[in-house]
Amino acid sequence: MGLSYVIAVVRSDALEAVEQRLIGIGIRGLTVVKVKGLGRHANFFSRDWLSDEVKLEIVTDNNRVEAIRSAIMDAAHSGAPGDGIVTVLPVSSFHRIRTRSEALPEDA
Amino acid sequence: MGLSYVIAVVRSDALEAVEQRLIGIGIRGLTVVKVKGLGRHANFFSRDWLSDEVKLEIVTDNNRVEAIRSAIMDAAHSGAPGDGIVTVLPVSSFHRIRTRSEALPEDA
Amino acid sequence: MGLSYVIAVVRSDALEAVEQRLIGIGIRGLTVVKVKGLGRHANFFSRDWLSDEVKLEIVTDNNRVEAIRSAIMDAAHSGAPGDGIVTVLPVSSFHRIRTRSEALPEDA
Repeated sequence: MGLSYVIAVVRSDALEAVEQRLIGIGIRGLTVVKVKGLGRHANFFSRDWLSDEVKLEIVTDNNRVEAIRSAIMDAAHSGAPGDGIVTVLPVSSFHRIRTRSEALPEDA
Repeated sequence: MGLSYVIAVVRSDALEAVEQRLIGIGIRGLTVVKVKGLGRHANFFSRDWLSDEVKLEIVTDNNRVEAIRSAIMDAAHSGAPGDGIVTVLPVSSFHRIRTRSEALPEDA
Repeated sequence: MGLSYVIAVVRSDALEAVEQRLIGIGIRGLTVVKVKGLGRHANFFSRDWLSDEVKLEIVTDNNRVEAIRSAIMDAAHSGAPGDGIVTVLPVSSFHRIRTRSEALPEDA
């Protein structure tokens, strides 16, 4: 079974809803980082065109990617510009430091 | 058409020049995060060897990677150590949350 | 020779040990960013379930991945939940801005 790296960028105020939805579908491991985002709605004449957003990163089995993407989209969708994006990258390997195993967070 | 994930790490004081250059070539979506960077110039005898840098991340069509990399290099290059790096990763999938489509930021 | 993108998430208090170990095996380029992490030990009834962690990212030759992963695991392992993870992604290309070359940080 292959693994994927899911990267979602959402508005800061959508973070809690997204987290709760992901916990609800069994996700037990993710990282969150504050980022500045530039979207299409940017005002290029202002220095304030970078908005506050959060980036979530999750390692998962390929067969869970669709459920994770749907969960994030359901929780973060408002229909307004700046709702964010979900990007998926291929993974070569994954290891858990505590057990030195390749078990995924959801399996541990 | 395949997609790529461009990750650039540049000095904080080069950020605005890089952003303007990217906007100039039509980039409409990117994220920026503050990072600490260790480069070859690091002073290993000091706790201050990690310098302040910024990391930019952009999802793009493969055929725009070269233009994006050149834009970043032109804007961030000073010739001094610490100018930074540009790394490109393959992308499995990309979705925009607002429209639930696979349109790229530049296309939307 | 292919390249890999190593992403490690470790406890903040393990950062210095991990950095020293990586320097010890010759790593000359990495980035560090503060993140919030959700692990299995999370208390879902508290808003404090996200712990403070750091994410390290390193671009390297494929043949150095195993040494880097071992170094990180040795330095960050405590046996307690929250020790963190090491994920490896494939890399399409890498460029150094100062020299506009594809030399890796360790080669430069």
